[in-house]
Amino acid sequence: MATPQFTVAQIAHACAGRFVGDAKSANAVVTGVAALHDARPDTISWIADVKHAKHLAECPAAAIIGTETLLAGHPRGIVVTNPDAAIADVLDKFEIPAEPPPPGKHPTAVIHDSASIAPTARIGAHAIVHAGATIAENAVIHEGVSIGRDVSIGAGTVLYDRVVIYDRCRIGDRVILHAGAVIGADGFGFFFQNNRLRKFSHIGTVIIENDVEIGPNSVVDRGKFGPTRIGQGTKIDALVMIGHNVQIGPLCVLAGQAGLSGSVKLGAGVAMGGQAGIVPGITIGDRARIAAQSGITKDVAAGDAIQGTPAQTIKTEMRNVVLVRKLHKLYDEVAELTRRVKELEASANHR
Amino acid sequence: MATPQFTVAQIAHACAGRFVGDAKSANAVVTGVAALHDARPDTISWIADVKHAKHLAECPAAAIIGTETLLAGHPRGIVVTNPDAAIADVLDKFEIPAEPPPPGKHPTAVIHDSASIAPTARIGAHAIVHAGATIAENAVIHEGVSIGRDVSIGAGTVLYDRVVIYDRCRIGDRVILHAGAVIGADGFGFFFQNNRLRKFSHIGTVIIENDVEIGPNSVVDRGKFGPTRIGQGTKIDALVMIGHNVQIGPLCVLAGQAGLSGSVKLGAGVAMGGQAGIVPGITIGDRARIAAQSGITKDVAAGDAIQGTPAQTIKTEMRNVVLVRKLHKLYDEVAELTRRVKELEASANHR
Amino acid sequence: MATPQFTVAQIAHACAGRFVGDAKSANAVVTGVAALHDARPDTISWIADVKHAKHLAECPAAAIIGTETLLAGHPRGIVVTNPDAAIADVLDKFEIPAEPPPPGKHPTAVIHDSASIAPTARIGAHAIVHAGATIAENAVIHEGVSIGRDVSIGAGTVLYDRVVIYDRCRIGDRVILHAGAVIGADGFGFFFQNNRLRKFSHIGTVIIENDVEIGPNSVVDRGKFGPTRIGQGTKIDALVMIGHNVQIGPLCVLAGQAGLSGSVKLGAGVAMGGQAGIVPGITIGDRARIAAQSGITKDVAAGDAIQGTPAQTIKTEMRNVVLVRKLHKLYDEVAELTRRVKELEASANHR
Repeated sequence: MATPQFTVAQIAHACAGRFVGDAKSANAVVTGVAALHDARPDTISWIADVKHAKHLAECPAAAIIGTETLLAGHPRGIVVTNPDAAIADVLDKFEIPAEPPPPGKHPTAVIHDSASIAPTARIGAHAIVHAGATIAENAVIHEGVSIGRDVSIGAGTVLYDRVVIYDRCRIGDRVILHAGAVIGADGFGFFFQNNRLRKFSHIGTVIIENDVEIGPNSVVDRGKFGPTRIGQGTKIDALVMIGHNVQIGPLCVLAGQAGLSGSVKLGAGVAMGGQAGIVPGITIGDRARIAAQSGITKDVAAGDAIQGTPAQTIKTEMRNVVLVRKLHKLYDEVAELTRRVKELEASANHR
Repeated sequence: MATPQFTVAQIAHACAGRFVGDAKSANAVVTGVAALHDARPDTISWIADVKHAKHLAECPAAAIIGTETLLAGHPRGIVVTNPDAAIADVLDKFEIPAEPPPPGKHPTAVIHDSASIAPTARIGAHAIVHAGATIAENAVIHEGVSIGRDVSIGAGTVLYDRVVIYDRCRIGDRVILHAGAVIGADGFGFFFQNNRLRKFSHIGTVIIENDVEIGPNSVVDRGKFGPTRIGQGTKIDALVMIGHNVQIGPLCVLAGQAGLSGSVKLGAGVAMGGQAGIVPGITIGDRARIAAQSGITKDVAAGDAIQGTPAQTIKTEMRNVVLVRKLHKLYDEVAELTRRVKELEASANHR
Repeated sequence: MATPQFTVAQIAHACAGRFVGDAKSANAVVTGVAALHDARPDTISWIADVKHAKHLAECPAAAIIGTETLLAGHPRGIVVTNPDAAIADVLDKFEIPAEPPPPGKHPTAVIHDSASIAPTARIGAHAIVHAGATIAENAVIHEGVSIGRDVSIGAGTVLYDRVVIYDRCRIGDRVILHAGAVIGADGFGFFFQNNRLRKFSHIGTVIIENDVEIGPNSVVDRGKFGPTRIGQGTKIDALVMIGHNVQIGPLCVLAGQAGLSGSVKLGAGVAMGGQAGIVPGITIGDRARIAAQSGITKDVAAGDAIQGTPAQTIKTEMRNVVLVRKLHKLYDEVAELTRRVKELEASANHR
């Protein structure tokens, strides 16, 4: 498939920017986006920080996006007010969306008669749709997806290849689930009875609200009773584990390989770093920030920034990290003090 | 599918409890289970700890399960001796098992002629069964499962959607493997030879004993030679990594995202927290408890409880965590001592 | 399928070893490989370290592989110069490769007309090959694999069951991707705009160079722009997360559940332990070694060995671990010093 290409002027228009340069430059053709140090004459680049200004002059990019201040009169600048948004606009322009299955149901898909599928939905090859499932308008069900009994899939939602959704889960509108994600498997709950580990049946479900995105091979377990819930607009990276009955608020961001134990509650706008983990039943306040690899063992107040295992405020953790790194000096100081005290004692005894 | 519903009396009977309340309450209809603070008039709730006793009075649940002591004469109590078991009984009552494929072989499944499949086994759509595989009575092979050559699947075992089992692995009876689990891929073993990383062929297998449950997207690698083994009744959560030649005893519990390197040995009844990891070749004694996120670098004795990276006993680790958190005071004390010693020295010299 | 069996003489020949023993022993039949303590009369074993020499005498193995020194005149020794290579040779001999699909295209595979598939390639049941994809000679596409639009798969590459490759990614020759691996999903990049998390389209791809192996259920995200790249001969274990635009050099080894954030760069020959993580944009020099569970927050120089969170050199980290473990003694010492200084002060004041 042909790479998209645009003129610099078209790019400037797409990102609501103002091109500052001559007509020839405005008509140059670009075929992609590259960082300042990687740019070629047929790519767009951008500057986001004054520390990269020194690379601006020799950068061969067809045009460079940035604020008026950062561009500092560059002869091929595209002046914008919000560089993040401008770059996003340009990337959208170049994006080739993943090829969806054709509208309708692929003949190799196995769809129960009682499933209700909107005419504009697309069901890919080898997909499975169980009894009572409903799939709304413009949903895209890629190849090999498995949709359980009585599951509902919202409008415009995209399920990539091999996603598995267990029975009765509800997936909102415009949700994106990447390949291999598993939604609604039983939570992990056992207790000892008669010398075996007896399983708690998990009669709850999973509710994924609108505009959520979940990365490849991530797992969201169903509730023991009542739903596990992922709040509107929350974004979850790859290989993340969400335990049974977790409640995640809107607009949270969870990085790769993070793990939430059963019944954890996240407020709104919480940010969680990669490989961080939270023990069962903990509550994290709105807009809290959890550093990568942290281990959370206590509730976290709204707005707090925490780090470490067991986690504490980043400020305290960083202070302690520094103090530990200087410990060898403290040991030396104490040894030296001990020597001096011994001397003082000797001289005192002598007197 | 209709939600199950029962009377309070039926629930009390199901969990071998004694309902203490009037006839009207005994006939009330319940449609689910909820925690004390979430309960509604049509749900069953329970009390497991005296600290929740204060919520008992205002809880609108149709009935509340608990010990005689904890219920303290509640007008709609279901008195039981083992609340965990009672709740499990009630959840079992409400459970709607995942819809299995119909008995027999789905026409879209691809099954080798030499595979031996019990008449009561169920093979879902798009499943693959390779040459020489055997599938025992009442096994449930969900959609898209892939079963390798000469694999054996025990009676009553359930493989959820998209599970992959490589050649020659043996899965016991009543095993549950959740969606996306991969059993029997090559272990991770390479060495440098002629400036490349040469792979050790992994000629071993995986043996999963009876009554094991493994969570979604978890991975159990095959042995380099000889089997990787998961002991009877052991329960493994989601996204867990079990390396080649690991030997796990019976009745262990491994939480989400835990990782066991090659040739690790776990005794019986070991409990391992989420995101904990064990380096190659380590032996963990029976009933040892490993805290979440711990990093195990040495053998652990039976019954020990360990924590931290590198892990030590929880008692020692917790003591050290506290001592590190007070370090800033120790630094201050040493500085103050230094000042006082200097003063003593000055005054001694002066004399 | 029958277990392979060989005579001891054949095994010695296979691993370029010299059998030291009588003719009867040379003709003994072996059916497998086992560690010294597990060996039986029909298995080959080996000795790799002098500390196991004490088990040599009573080991019933048909023959034991080792260096002349380690075997120390054992009556059934196979003398070799490189035991690792010899064991690899023997394991290769016993290996039964996973059953590939038959050559050609399985009738249940769904293959776009515009895909180009070499006549010797094998495409398994329920595989998907999208428009414009190319699959080279002797590639093995196992069951249920999904290959996106314009993807290229190199010669001799093996994709195990349920692997998913998103559009436009390029997979080299002799690559092995284990079951459930997902290559080329969107990177994880969002920013706040108008009170929602807006997604950066990821217009880049993934390039996996020749001879790479990636473990089950691992994830490699596509670049935001430009490729994410895995260098030639690099080996990646299970459940590993590789973020967008990561650049991994040749011959790196990444253990299970490791995680690399966006735009991380690894040089050549880097070794990374299990569950270790690297924050975005970090550069790791050639041959650096990162211990398991480390958290890397700063660039690492070539050849450095680092550990801990935040990571520092293993030497410094180990020193600090020891100093922390002795902290209770330091606290005691300081308390004792304080007492003695107080006494000195009292006696000085007294004078």
